[in-house]
Amino acid sequence: MHSISDLQVILKKVFDSASFSQEPAELYDPIFYTLNLGGKRIRPLLVLIGCDLFHGDIEKAGPAILAIELFHNFTLLHDDIMDRAPLRRGKETVYKKWNTNVAILSGDTMFALACEYLSQADPDVLPLALSEFTRTARMVCEGQQYDMNFETRKVVSIGEYLEMIRLKTAVLIGCSLKLGAILAKAPPAETAKIYSFGENIGMAFQIQDDLLDVFGDEQKFGKEIGGDILSGKKTFLLLKAYEIAPEKEKSELDQCFSDPSIHSEEKIERVTKVYQSLKIREITLEEIGKYFSKALQSCDGIDADVNSKKALGLFANDLLKRDF
Amino acid sequence: MHSISDLQVILKKVFDSASFSQEPAELYDPIFYTLNLGGKRIRPLLVLIGCDLFHGDIEKAGPAILAIELFHNFTLLHDDIMDRAPLRRGKETVYKKWNTNVAILSGDTMFALACEYLSQADPDVLPLALSEFTRTARMVCEGQQYDMNFETRKVVSIGEYLEMIRLKTAVLIGCSLKLGAILAKAPPAETAKIYSFGENIGMAFQIQDDLLDVFGDEQKFGKEIGGDILSGKKTFLLLKAYEIAPEKEKSELDQCFSDPSIHSEEKIERVTKVYQSLKIREITLEEIGKYFSKALQSCDGIDADVNSKKALGLFANDLLKRDF
Repeated sequence: MHSISDLQVILKKVFDSASFSQEPAELYDPIFYTLNLGGKRIRPLLVLIGCDLFHGDIEKAGPAILAIELFHNFTLLHDDIMDRAPLRRGKETVYKKWNTNVAILSGDTMFALACEYLSQADPDVLPLALSEFTRTARMVCEGQQYDMNFETRKVVSIGEYLEMIRLKTAVLIGCSLKLGAILAKAPPAETAKIYSFGENIGMAFQIQDDLLDVFGDEQKFGKEIGGDILSGKKTFLLLKAYEIAPEKEKSELDQCFSDPSIHSEEKIERVTKVYQSLKIREITLEEIGKYFSKALQSCDGIDADVNSKKALGLFANDLLKRDF
Repeated sequence: MHSISDLQVILKKVFDSASFSQEPAELYDPIFYTLNLGGKRIRPLLVLIGCDLFHGDIEKAGPAILAIELFHNFTLLHDDIMDRAPLRRGKETVYKKWNTNVAILSGDTMFALACEYLSQADPDVLPLALSEFTRTARMVCEGQQYDMNFETRKVVSIGEYLEMIRLKTAVLIGCSLKLGAILAKAPPAETAKIYSFGENIGMAFQIQDDLLDVFGDEQKFGKEIGGDILSGKKTFLLLKAYEIAPEKEKSELDQCFSDPSIHSEEKIERVTKVYQSLKIREITLEEIGKYFSKALQSCDGIDADVNSKKALGLFANDLLKRDF
């Protein structure tokens, strides 16, 4: 198995040689801009890892790599319109820098480009690769819709929340690894296991993201602490707190989220205090651990070289410390 | 070859048996709504015609049929957001009936669904079908971007305009027929000819649409006459008029399009009068005829039964009298 840094070199080569700048500029400039915002390209790396684990020809994974990254960036571009997000990675989002129409249409073009790249995959793996990719694409859309629905819904259960993050984030992590395995012609039982590994890592990551928003190190996290509390976002922490809180803590949360006279700093402090009294940090860490264990279990079951699987587990562990 | 009405029956069966209504409702309700707005389903019919002409199994064309119609409706849905169009086929557009976010995301989902359906095509034709479909999808996006660019550009040449309508409309007509031919495993030389037939019919149709806006029968056209003149749209007629007009007519057009005190009725009347003096109607009819002849020439060259080709020509002729 190749080292992660070897795979990173291949990844760079693929992206450097891909040319997205064509006419009309209003369509392709935002695509180039988005792909060069400094994303970590974790998903295309996962395609290579999945392919390499099953001894596939990683040199031939180029189109699938580009497809996954283009698709992921397309979803970010459209999500930013829907969420009215002014910044991504500290730079203006496309709809802000250009306008909403440009963001809609260049996003659409990225999705078309993604499928166009995928069509260059080996013909004998294309049917499976395409059906996996498009089913995942649809699930990601469903996840985003649930996420938007939850913003205005009063009650969201933990189960509904977990399903939302599974659709919005985890399935694409699973799909990236599985796509690589499909390219390597791994048998279905094996592609299912690596998918499960990726999906569970994705769940762990997303819940950890909720945790870091409250209990993270601001420097490492790269965002301001308490942002989710201030925006009233229904995170795992908040939903779990409401699920287990006695009446007193419940009304304290209710007050924090309904009284506009409470200042930001005080709001973060009071909600965090409720979390601490309910041991939400510990419960959340336990939940993350549960998904991480499930992931490692799936990884263990894969019919591949022990050292490669160990490396995969270590990589997943590293991922959990990084920005996806 | 099956009759058009036979093919319509198959088409209806495919659409009736397809189920798009799933959870979350906010995502799938607009898809169901859009597909049932009363569109003529011309493009999926063209898939069947293309498949049937080359003796393909039309019963197996279901996924490609759904893919083409879903893709086409996805572009309408997003175009309506970009154009701020309140109505489509006399009913509220999705972004008006729901909201912009719902329209963006359900459109994205339709595109994903389209590719998901296509992935069910026969594995041996899938690589070609997918690459044709996705390349076309990207071209349609390019056409829409040029169309938006032209709104604010002062000078647009006839050549640029023709390229825009080719991308925005004609290539999808060509692609629909070609996709059917690909499903029937027609040789590349034949699929190229049926594509050319469709592309030229698409060009003729789009230019005719410009013509009908000014010289059409309001009842048959289904839209109010002069809409393009009132909105100042750069149509074939207007661009051609500017291209050939002597100074006097040019300044008359300039005045009509820059003086806001001119009332709608007068504006339509004066611009139409310039068109008449420049014989724009005749020039436009000649242009339409040119594309129609090119289409028939491509049709003639196809290696297929003479009667089938004759039927195809007649169908194209009928199409030019209808709403695409």
